[in-house]
Amino acid sequence: MREVYVLGVGQIPVTKDKDEPLRDMAARAVRAALADAGVEAVEALYTGNMLSGMLSHQQHLGALVADAAGLRGVEAATAEAACGSGAAAMRWGYMAIASGAYDLVAICGVEKMTHTDRYETTRALATASDWPTEGAHGHSFVSLNAVIMQEYLRRYRANRSLFAAFAINAHENAATNPNALFQKPITVEKYEDSPIVQAPIRLYDASPICDGSAALILASADRLPAANGAHPRVRVAASASATDSVGIADRHDLLTLEGAVGSSRRAFAQAGMTPADIHFFELHDAFTIMAVLSLEGAGFAQPGQGLWLGADGDIRREGKVPISTFGGLKARGHPVGGTGVYQLVETYLQVTHQAGANQVPGARIGMTQNVGGTGATVITHILERIDD
Amino acid sequence: MREVYVLGVGQIPVTKDKDEPLRDMAARAVRAALADAGVEAVEALYTGNMLSGMLSHQQHLGALVADAAGLRGVEAATAEAACGSGAAAMRWGYMAIASGAYDLVAICGVEKMTHTDRYETTRALATASDWPTEGAHGHSFVSLNAVIMQEYLRRYRANRSLFAAFAINAHENAATNPNALFQKPITVEKYEDSPIVQAPIRLYDASPICDGSAALILASADRLPAANGAHPRVRVAASASATDSVGIADRHDLLTLEGAVGSSRRAFAQAGMTPADIHFFELHDAFTIMAVLSLEGAGFAQPGQGLWLGADGDIRREGKVPISTFGGLKARGHPVGGTGVYQLVETYLQVTHQAGANQVPGARIGMTQNVGGTGATVITHILERIDD
Repeated sequence: MREVYVLGVGQIPVTKDKDEPLRDMAARAVRAALADAGVEAVEALYTGNMLSGMLSHQQHLGALVADAAGLRGVEAATAEAACGSGAAAMRWGYMAIASGAYDLVAICGVEKMTHTDRYETTRALATASDWPTEGAHGHSFVSLNAVIMQEYLRRYRANRSLFAAFAINAHENAATNPNALFQKPITVEKYEDSPIVQAPIRLYDASPICDGSAALILASADRLPAANGAHPRVRVAASASATDSVGIADRHDLLTLEGAVGSSRRAFAQAGMTPADIHFFELHDAFTIMAVLSLEGAGFAQPGQGLWLGADGDIRREGKVPISTFGGLKARGHPVGGTGVYQLVETYLQVTHQAGANQVPGARIGMTQNVGGTGATVITHILERIDD
Repeated sequence: MREVYVLGVGQIPVTKDKDEPLRDMAARAVRAALADAGVEAVEALYTGNMLSGMLSHQQHLGALVADAAGLRGVEAATAEAACGSGAAAMRWGYMAIASGAYDLVAICGVEKMTHTDRYETTRALATASDWPTEGAHGHSFVSLNAVIMQEYLRRYRANRSLFAAFAINAHENAATNPNALFQKPITVEKYEDSPIVQAPIRLYDASPICDGSAALILASADRLPAANGAHPRVRVAASASATDSVGIADRHDLLTLEGAVGSSRRAFAQAGMTPADIHFFELHDAFTIMAVLSLEGAGFAQPGQGLWLGADGDIRREGKVPISTFGGLKARGHPVGGTGVYQLVETYLQVTHQAGANQVPGARIGMTQNVGGTGATVITHILERIDD
C-alpha cells in the first residue's frame, strides 16, 4: 500500500440555529480544506452522511456536494455507517490514495439535523439501530445507551457521579474552540442538577442534535509540497474498521465494544504501536458511557476501569490520555455524518501544533475512533506527524 | 495498483410480490456469492443501497448485512450514489483490493421498494434529484426522463416508435432469465398500446419498482485458485466514475451525459480499449431514453444516432453492441441499489460462458454502466476473461 498523507483541513462552526442548506455547509468545509491544502482541485470526493435522505429529502450527496464545491466531474459518492459515516468516508478516500487510483482526494462529513420536527430527527437516528428489534419498538439512541450505562453501573457497582468528569472535560475544552456548539464550561453541580433524560442518562451525559461539516484533503507522497512550508507532514499511520451486531441483544457482551476492540487492534498492528504511543484520543463520546467503553475497547483501560480515567484526570489535556480535546461530540457537537471528519480535522490540528488554546503539549501522534450505532461499526485512525 | 479479479457471484430473483426483509435478501445474495467463489469468509463487505433509511427505517446496512451473512466483525459500510449505489460499492471494494488492504472482499447491492406506500417510494426515489429545484416541485424520475426524451425527439426529429426496440430487446432477453422480474416477451403492438405514463414516456419505456439483491466476491491475484477449476479468471480491466450536476437545469447540454462520457473515457483509458473491443454492454436502461444516451455517451454511437442501434438490431444478442442481455433494468428489473451489482454479476456470467440461453456468443469482454439520478453519477466497469 502507498502511504497516505493529510494535506489540509477545513471545518465550519457547529450550530443549532442557522438554517443553512446541507450542500452549502459541505461546500464551505470542502473549499476551506482545499484552501488550507493549497490545491485547486482533487480527483475524487467521498462524503459521509447518514440522515440527509430522511431529513432533507436529498440523497445523492456525492455528486451534489462535488458540484457545489466547484468539483463537478470528479468521482463522488456517499459513505454511510450510521454515526460512523464520516470515518467511513475517510476509509474510502484512504484506499483511493493507497491503491494508486488517485493522488489527491477530498473527504467531507456533513449532517443537518435541526430545523425539522424533533420527533422525526430522533426517529431517523433510530434507523442506526436494528429497526425490527429496537427502533420499531420505540428505542432511541438515548434509551439504548441508558440500557448500556445501567448495566455498567450494575456490573461494576460504579459510582454514577464519576461520569461527570467526561462531560466537564469536554465542555472545558470546547470553551476555547470557536467551532464548538457549546463554548461554556460546566461544573459538577451543573452536571448533577441537569435533568435525567432517560435514567441513568442526564442531559449532560448526551451529545446535542446539531448541524455541521468538516473536510480534509488526502494526498499521496508525490503530491506533498517539496518545501514543507508552514505545516509538517502528517501521515495516516493506521486506518481500520470492524463491526459487531447492530442490535444490542445479539452482542456477546453488552459492555464490550467488539468493534472497538477489533478496529483498535487492527490500527495498532498497522501502525506498529500500542496505546502507550498515543498522545491523545479523539473518541466517540456521543454519551459519556460510550467514551468509557471506547477507552476500554481500545485498550487504554481494563474493563470496568475506564471510568476512573475521568476521575483521575487522565483524560484532561495534560493527562495521560487526553480525550475530546476540542470538546468532543459532547460539547463541540455531534452532527452525525460530520463527526468522524471533525475528529480527524482536530487530530490534524493537534499534531501540526495548530490547536491554539486547545493544544495538547508536544502531541505528535493522535488516534480517532468513530462509532456507528451502539457500536456495530467502529472505525479507528491514527495520524502521525513526520518531522523531516 | 494491484490487479482485481471477480472470484464468484450470487443473485436472488428480482420480485415484486415477496415481502422479504431487506437484510435477508442481501444475506442470501452474499452467501450465494461466497458459495460460488468457494470461500467461507471475506475481509470486508461494501453494500450499495439508496432507499432503506426512507422506506425500511433501516440505515447502517453495512454492519447489518455483514452480520446477517455470517460475516460479523469484518469491515462493512454502505455506498450510496442514488441508482448508481451498486457500482459505487464495487468502486470501494475494487480499491480495497487494489490498495492491498484486503485480498478478499464482498460487494452487495440491495433494494426493497415494494410493500410500502407507492407515493412514498416515488418520493424517496426523487431524493436522487436536486430536491430544491426538482423533487420539491413535484418532479419524479419519470417526469425528469420525460423532459429529456422530449428534447431528444425535438432536437433530432426522432421517430418516437424507434424507442420500442429497446423495450422489446430487454423483454426478449429477460424471457430466458430465471432471475428476471418479467419473463415474457413483448411485441411492437403491445409497446405501442401501452399507456402513456408521462408523455412521451410509455409504460414500456420505464423500468419497474421491485426488490432484489446481487453480490460478488473480489479477490487479489494471490487468492485465485491455483487450478482454475470450472471458471476462467475474470479481471476487472477498468473501474471508473465521473459526475455531473444533479439538477438537469445545471447541465451544459441536456442530451449529453457528461458523466457517461467522462467515466467511459477513464475506463477505456485504464483498460487500453475502445468501444470496438467491447463484446456487450450492460447499460442503465432505467428508461429507454437513458439507454440511448448511455450508448452515445460511452462512444458506441454519435449524438442523435444511438436510437438507430435499436432499429438496426445492433443491440440484440447477436448484434454489434448487445445490451441488456439478461433483460436489463427494463425487464430483469431495477431494484435501485441492487442494479449496479446485477449488471456486474450478469457480465461475469457472460464472460465465463455461464449465461445459458442468454449467452452472447464468444463474449470475453463486457462493460457495465450504472447511472445515478438523471446522469449525475455514472460508473463504468469493464470485465475481461483471461484464458490461461
